[in-house]
Amino acid sequence: MGKRIVIALGGNALGNSLKEQMEAALGTAKAIVDLVAAGHEVVIVHGNGPQVGMIETAFETAAKADKLHYPVLPMSVCVALSQGYIGYDLQNVIRKELDARGITQAVATIVTQVEVDPNDPAFANPTKPIGNFMTEAEAETLRAKGIPVMEDAGRGWRQVVASPKPVAIIETAVIETLLKAGHIPIAAGGGGIPVARKADGQYHGMSAVIDKDFSAAKLAESIGADMLIILTAVEKVAVNFGKPNQRNLDRLSVSEARKYIGENQFAKGSMLPKVEAALRFIEARPAGEALITLLAKAKEGIEGKTGTRIVQG
Amino acid sequence: MGKRIVIALGGNALGNSLKEQMEAALGTAKAIVDLVAAGHEVVIVHGNGPQVGMIETAFETAAKADKLHYPVLPMSVCVALSQGYIGYDLQNVIRKELDARGITQAVATIVTQVEVDPNDPAFANPTKPIGNFMTEAEAETLRAKGIPVMEDAGRGWRQVVASPKPVAIIETAVIETLLKAGHIPIAAGGGGIPVARKADGQYHGMSAVIDKDFSAAKLAESIGADMLIILTAVEKVAVNFGKPNQRNLDRLSVSEARKYIGENQFAKGSMLPKVEAALRFIEARPAGEALITLLAKAKEGIEGKTGTRIVQG
Repeated sequence: MGKRIVIALGGNALGNSLKEQMEAALGTAKAIVDLVAAGHEVVIVHGNGPQVGMIETAFETAAKADKLHYPVLPMSVCVALSQGYIGYDLQNVIRKELDARGITQAVATIVTQVEVDPNDPAFANPTKPIGNFMTEAEAETLRAKGIPVMEDAGRGWRQVVASPKPVAIIETAVIETLLKAGHIPIAAGGGGIPVARKADGQYHGMSAVIDKDFSAAKLAESIGADMLIILTAVEKVAVNFGKPNQRNLDRLSVSEARKYIGENQFAKGSMLPKVEAALRFIEARPAGEALITLLAKAKEGIEGKTGTRIVQG
Repeated sequence: MGKRIVIALGGNALGNSLKEQMEAALGTAKAIVDLVAAGHEVVIVHGNGPQVGMIETAFETAAKADKLHYPVLPMSVCVALSQGYIGYDLQNVIRKELDARGITQAVATIVTQVEVDPNDPAFANPTKPIGNFMTEAEAETLRAKGIPVMEDAGRGWRQVVASPKPVAIIETAVIETLLKAGHIPIAAGGGGIPVARKADGQYHGMSAVIDKDFSAAKLAESIGADMLIILTAVEKVAVNFGKPNQRNLDRLSVSEARKYIGENQFAKGSMLPKVEAALRFIEARPAGEALITLLAKAKEGIEGKTGTRIVQG
């Protein structure tokens, strides 16, 4: 009874440095191959927060030092680079884990563009944190230069960019082809390269980073997935989080989720976008299920043993 | 009578800056879509000389300025980034050209690893130019720091890295699947991410840049291509190049090619590796044909009207 599953991995779960990324990727590979070995069709979507920030920083520093032939690398291009960077690591460690279990299915990274609406209000109000955490003083220095910064869910300050909602996954047909052939695609990395179709008929890069959970939801909708799994740092979604009356949720209907969102139960920039992404998928595909849990609990979650399941109702 | 074709585009043909890359890619897209429209199955392999050098420079500069959490980005990772970077541009402009002609086939970039032999003698003798051209004085500064540099075919000085020969294209099955489905893969960009399998059973990145013409030849062999097209800055391969008795070649048999190589007729780091890559393909697949010509002449070349055709014999 294999399911078609889109799994969204956090960018922070991939580590903040090259060494951390490689170590984190090993654990990720084991959890993903567990799902493949259980007979599921799996598409992997990953975040890129620390990595895309690092890429932007590197090119900005080099441009300032006049080492390059052009001033800045657009954010869309930074995302494209991050897909090559993270995808390479992920496909490599997943390959090793597949080989170790005698599974011959191929794994491959697809450079993925995601269409956004150039009139999305997000462009006027940047909210997506990228790069490393900073002190408030460091953030003030950036802000003074006109670069938007924001306090990130109590974990420190970070640069922020616009985060429009995905409208379409350009490479859907390619991802569908790979799944049908029994391959394991890594797609829409970092939420996908944000593009919009301009008057010249071509997709052009946009200065944005799309939330990878929303892109995963859009991809799950596009390929008719049975399940969207959003991985995070907690095993279950909770109401009254961190309070004495915290209640972990096994099941969350669309109407309950809407009620809790109205009560501000889910932290902005943390659990809220994950629940919202799950809702988008369920609304587009009422027969589908969304699961929010820890990476290490994904397999048990699919079996209905843990995690928070978001369903129609 | 569609053929299965692997086409190798020069990295320099993609321009030396982001703006140049985007403009060059437009012309490239038209020539490639001509082949698709004629009913051929096309896989695109591109170079990355200027781009991988730029990426390495950016990260090296940032690392020196202490802006990052780690000292240097390995060359294999730089290649992975360059695949995301160039692939995104190429798939985008090819998409536009396909749309303009009402062709619905999908185009997608596959992050591609290419296995090399860690005992390849190339690792002891770096010869592959990367990055921008330098003056001899700038080159001397690098050489003094232990970074290998070389004069590049009369065009200036450049940094050089090891260029081992490709042994296998890791993502062959994925590329084959995309072709069978009628998609247009962009693969083994920059010659592919150089990897070698170590004792831990995992592929690890190697400090190298594989010649994209050799990777294209290996890929053409792996997917059983009918034709390998290597694009360059001249319409035909010539003997006595640049001399009064220069003779352009329409057809070059394997034995003739070997004779001319023995006479040093083809410039090292320029035409020689292209002819050698063509020979490797023909030796592995005697029924195949290799064509060396200009991008704008590719379509006519396939029709037998121009270019230099390398064949068995």
